[in-house]
Amino acid sequence: MTPKIRLHLDQPLASGQPLQLDRDQSNYLFAVMRLEVGATLLVFNGRDGEWVARVTAASKRGGELVAESRTRPVLMPPDLWLMFAPIKKARTDFIVEKATELGAARIMPVMTEYTNAERIRQDRLQAHAVEATEQCGGTFVPVVEDLQPLSKVLAVWPADRNLLWCDESMVGQSRSLAGLPRGPWAVLIGPEGGFSAAEQRRLRALPFVHALSLGPRILRADTAAVAALALWQADLGDWG
Amino acid sequence: MTPKIRLHLDQPLASGQPLQLDRDQSNYLFAVMRLEVGATLLVFNGRDGEWVARVTAASKRGGELVAESRTRPVLMPPDLWLMFAPIKKARTDFIVEKATELGAARIMPVMTEYTNAERIRQDRLQAHAVEATEQCGGTFVPVVEDLQPLSKVLAVWPADRNLLWCDESMVGQSRSLAGLPRGPWAVLIGPEGGFSAAEQRRLRALPFVHALSLGPRILRADTAAVAALALWQADLGDWG
Repeated sequence: MTPKIRLHLDQPLASGQPLQLDRDQSNYLFAVMRLEVGATLLVFNGRDGEWVARVTAASKRGGELVAESRTRPVLMPPDLWLMFAPIKKARTDFIVEKATELGAARIMPVMTEYTNAERIRQDRLQAHAVEATEQCGGTFVPVVEDLQPLSKVLAVWPADRNLLWCDESMVGQSRSLAGLPRGPWAVLIGPEGGFSAAEQRRLRALPFVHALSLGPRILRADTAAVAALALWQADLGDWG
Repeated sequence: MTPKIRLHLDQPLASGQPLQLDRDQSNYLFAVMRLEVGATLLVFNGRDGEWVARVTAASKRGGELVAESRTRPVLMPPDLWLMFAPIKKARTDFIVEKATELGAARIMPVMTEYTNAERIRQDRLQAHAVEATEQCGGTFVPVVEDLQPLSKVLAVWPADRNLLWCDESMVGQSRSLAGLPRGPWAVLIGPEGGFSAAEQRRLRALPFVHALSLGPRILRADTAAVAALALWQADLGDWG
């Protein structure tokens, strides 16, 4: 039977490899989940796939596992970034969770002119991505970056990466993904209130920017993020 | 300037039409939002579009408005049903909110063999759809039905309606929406744990069922609902 518990461990995984657990991990496995020596669980590190590991020492302050056999190779997501303007805490958490499930490789909170948040808890959002990967059975953890100004991100934009721009101002305009090139991409979701006129002018003028309409209804930023990632994956990503 | 407050009222809307407010609505407008006589807000009833209304009597127990002018006609969604197995409360609320934003016309919680919920609060979910419509600027409120067994829904299925079936067992199979007919559709999302073998056999045998893969990663039910609705709207709905 496949073990139910999945744990992210930032250690190399290989057959026979001993794995040290920190205090939080030990507390979770041995106090909360009540695993005992000999029990098995699934572990992954985002690089070496998913492994069955067996408990060899069960102390609540620092237990030990040994990796036994690989159950799945790592499934790398396509080279897709999600850029979004952070919103209320619960909905920002939601965006990170959904982007992880939907196979974004990098999650980049960006500050726009109409963004309310001045800072984010990058460490908390990264932990949220790890937890989402544990829950959804993934083997790759997307990198969550710290908050950066959109203007700065655009100023150093890599020449070979396309940008899918989803904004309320596009409502009614119809642009589909059909015919767009594959390769490195980013999806950009605006804040509530959209982009400023100056930001819209700048985005329209950039050669790597492609506008996408998400229909005639106004979507919340979190809905737009999930919808745009799904459309991209279906047409240009690894769902096809 | 466009009024910020949007309120759903289940009354006919026409120019000069007086509108009675119930106690909850009056409390919200006059105690919480502190509107006074002469202030304006937007109202809609799901049938007559969106109207500017002006406060003519501001009592916390029962105020009155008068409808002045229509700002937008009603935007009917395509003939799309969302069928889903109810999950935890917060995520069920989320599915109702997102289905409303994404333009589903009817939201149908269905009981499957692996559904944990035995009942839902239909009135609460319908109120949630109203609130989501108020928030997202919509003019149509989807109908939320009471929980029904999937087998019963399938037994009386309308002959002209296609069904898009999204299930974990489809992972890896590639079926796209391209080439599928337009017209009445429903999207069916499975519960955590998927459909039983018997349900899968039944669904595969039905002539109106089309399977859809949502990629190689396991999605939560709420993520799958948003992704499937977005893909349907982009290819077969009113986003194109």
